[in-house]
Amino acid sequence: MTDFIARDETATLISADKVEGTAVFNHDGEKLGSVEDVMLDKRQGNVAFAVMSFGGFLGMGEKHHPLPWDTLDYDEDRDGYVVNLSKEKLEDAPTIERNETNRLYDRSYGEKVYGYYGVQPYWI
Amino acid sequence: MTDFIARDETATLISADKVEGTAVFNHDGEKLGSVEDVMLDKRQGNVAFAVMSFGGFLGMGEKHHPLPWDTLDYDEDRDGYVVNLSKEKLEDAPTIERNETNRLYDRSYGEKVYGYYGVQPYWI
Repeated sequence: MTDFIARDETATLISADKVEGTAVFNHDGEKLGSVEDVMLDKRQGNVAFAVMSFGGFLGMGEKHHPLPWDTLDYDEDRDGYVVNLSKEKLEDAPTIERNETNRLYDRSYGEKVYGYYGVQPYWI
Repeated sequence: MTDFIARDETATLISADKVEGTAVFNHDGEKLGSVEDVMLDKRQGNVAFAVMSFGGFLGMGEKHHPLPWDTLDYDEDRDGYVVNLSKEKLEDAPTIERNETNRLYDRSYGEKVYGYYGVQPYWI
């Protein structure tokens, strides 16, 4: 929506606008997808998930993976995020479909997602 | 960028996309501005600021106020956020200009902003 906030990945903060659309790679340099949206926890003020879109063609067959924010490390050289995740591991990872995004609001689903990536949920 | 995540303000989480562009009112029902961007803390995973644009005409004379996330309460009836803030108090509030957004990355500036709104900084 805006270019008001300059991108500066060396800084502590980043604009949510700049996160969205950013590519996600694994450690082997394979592109896994890109960040489609960022989910914020209204009460606790945390970034709950980055929602990554993965594969698909014109939106068909596209998978959406909720990732704990902590799994994403920014790599300046690649101008994208790097996750420690093989394509195979990603294929088994929790996904959400377009018509079931409400599942993200369910803490027990959130715990399953965080558990898959070995990240302690911030709400526990 | 996307409408993948449905808006559901009764839920715990909200998409950053849905926050941006949302109107901000005070308790008297006066429209103060709208959320232009959301700044995320990369390391700590918190929502650091909502950046509200206030007034101005075609971008001229527009002021930008960084607000601690905790100051914003969603009001379903108004379909916008409500802050406990008079227009007068807002006029004295910390603002950032288009060419000085880097100030947001400075923790001492952040403490000044949080202090103005009486909110304990999450990083302290």
